[in-house]
Amino acid sequence: MVTKNQIKLVASLQQKKYRTKHGLFVVEGKKVIKELLESGFEPFKLFVDNAQEKDDFHDAELVSKSELKQMSSLSNANGVLGVFRVLDTKKIENTDWVVALDSVRDPGNLGTIIRLCDWFGVKHLICSLDTVDCYNPKVLQATMGSIARVNIVYVNLEEFLTNAETPIYGAFMDGDVVYHKELPKFGILVLGNEANGISAEINSKIKNRIAIPQFGSTTTESLNVATATGILLNELRRGSG
Amino acid sequence: MVTKNQIKLVASLQQKKYRTKHGLFVVEGKKVIKELLESGFEPFKLFVDNAQEKDDFHDAELVSKSELKQMSSLSNANGVLGVFRVLDTKKIENTDWVVALDSVRDPGNLGTIIRLCDWFGVKHLICSLDTVDCYNPKVLQATMGSIARVNIVYVNLEEFLTNAETPIYGAFMDGDVVYHKELPKFGILVLGNEANGISAEINSKIKNRIAIPQFGSTTTESLNVATATGILLNELRRGSG
Repeated sequence: MVTKNQIKLVASLQQKKYRTKHGLFVVEGKKVIKELLESGFEPFKLFVDNAQEKDDFHDAELVSKSELKQMSSLSNANGVLGVFRVLDTKKIENTDWVVALDSVRDPGNLGTIIRLCDWFGVKHLICSLDTVDCYNPKVLQATMGSIARVNIVYVNLEEFLTNAETPIYGAFMDGDVVYHKELPKFGILVLGNEANGISAEINSKIKNRIAIPQFGSTTTESLNVATATGILLNELRRGSG
Repeated sequence: MVTKNQIKLVASLQQKKYRTKHGLFVVEGKKVIKELLESGFEPFKLFVDNAQEKDDFHDAELVSKSELKQMSSLSNANGVLGVFRVLDTKKIENTDWVVALDSVRDPGNLGTIIRLCDWFGVKHLICSLDTVDCYNPKVLQATMGSIARVNIVYVNLEEFLTNAETPIYGAFMDGDVVYHKELPKFGILVLGNEANGISAEINSKIKNRIAIPQFGSTTTESLNVATATGILLNELRRGSG
């Protein structure tokens, strides 16, 4: 039987500080939970609120709908909730492209970027310390399980770039048109914050400023950061596709 | 002074049937409203809930915070609300690429796709009748004003494609790698529903099946439809960039 303390623990994991403290995070929804299990994430505890779901998740504990609701971050808890252990981060290899994010704040954007890294075979995603937490429930919902296949590391980005041994590229509105650049086989691709782009400190570390040209009229809005990541990863990979 | 009936009318525009009935839609937020005004959208009525905003919007009517809240679809109404007339749709030209959407349901995706069409200079966006309404408040929020610069037309897509005189391309998981295709200067690019892709009826109209290749591991998830649109529009334009 689930105890009040367990419910309290799971509910607390909606906050980053408790995820960090316990090394645990919560995922909801059958599909994402299955993907995590298949990709080698270790379940700390699984909960289901009806007997049918037990067929799919033998090790899950059956709880009442109201208990699941207390643990859930969703307005409609959807029957299955998994508590997983945070993955150990791996050493970053610099034999391929890695993506680095400077203060990306929107969970949906980070989730989409993780999914894009997975799609384009980018194994390492570097996040500045003020980038949204990758175990945020909204990020997890948007990743569709890709989080299991991308090594996500939070670092002091300025320091990381200062010590980097591979070429550093950054996406800027006024950069050089990416189509005309000879792109190396490996490097670091930096993308910036939704509203402000790449910050001044990070900017100073970037030698290669690239841009996706604008073909339409006169909007001053940049592309969404996740869309820009998709287009640039496609540019990096298309030579070998 | 704003009347109860006016408040009721504005609030009703959250629903598509009333937007269609009255030929009006609602936009909230200073920035988007300014963009619409600058792009030639005709305001039917502007409302502000404080005197400072009047400096920016001289023609706006000052209402109380509670009145604005009653008209707003946001949980935190943000000071300025505009009611605009729906634009007349223009004739579709077939001298350039157009994008066609088969049953795209997510407002954020449609908004992002409109913004991408604007960025890449695609003037016409064709939507199947079951694609989410482009005047849905969440779409408008995501377009960032691009909606004023893209001609969006809702049609029976099967019929439209049957009568089309330009080459039809569609995005499929198992299509030909887009990098290796010689792409024409104009045509129709079809993208499908978030969960099910392009439907069987529409599929039968598509001669050219293209794909963005996957470089990563074994996910069975496709790319998000808005991301895929961005990457493919970049592919269509990069030859002329």
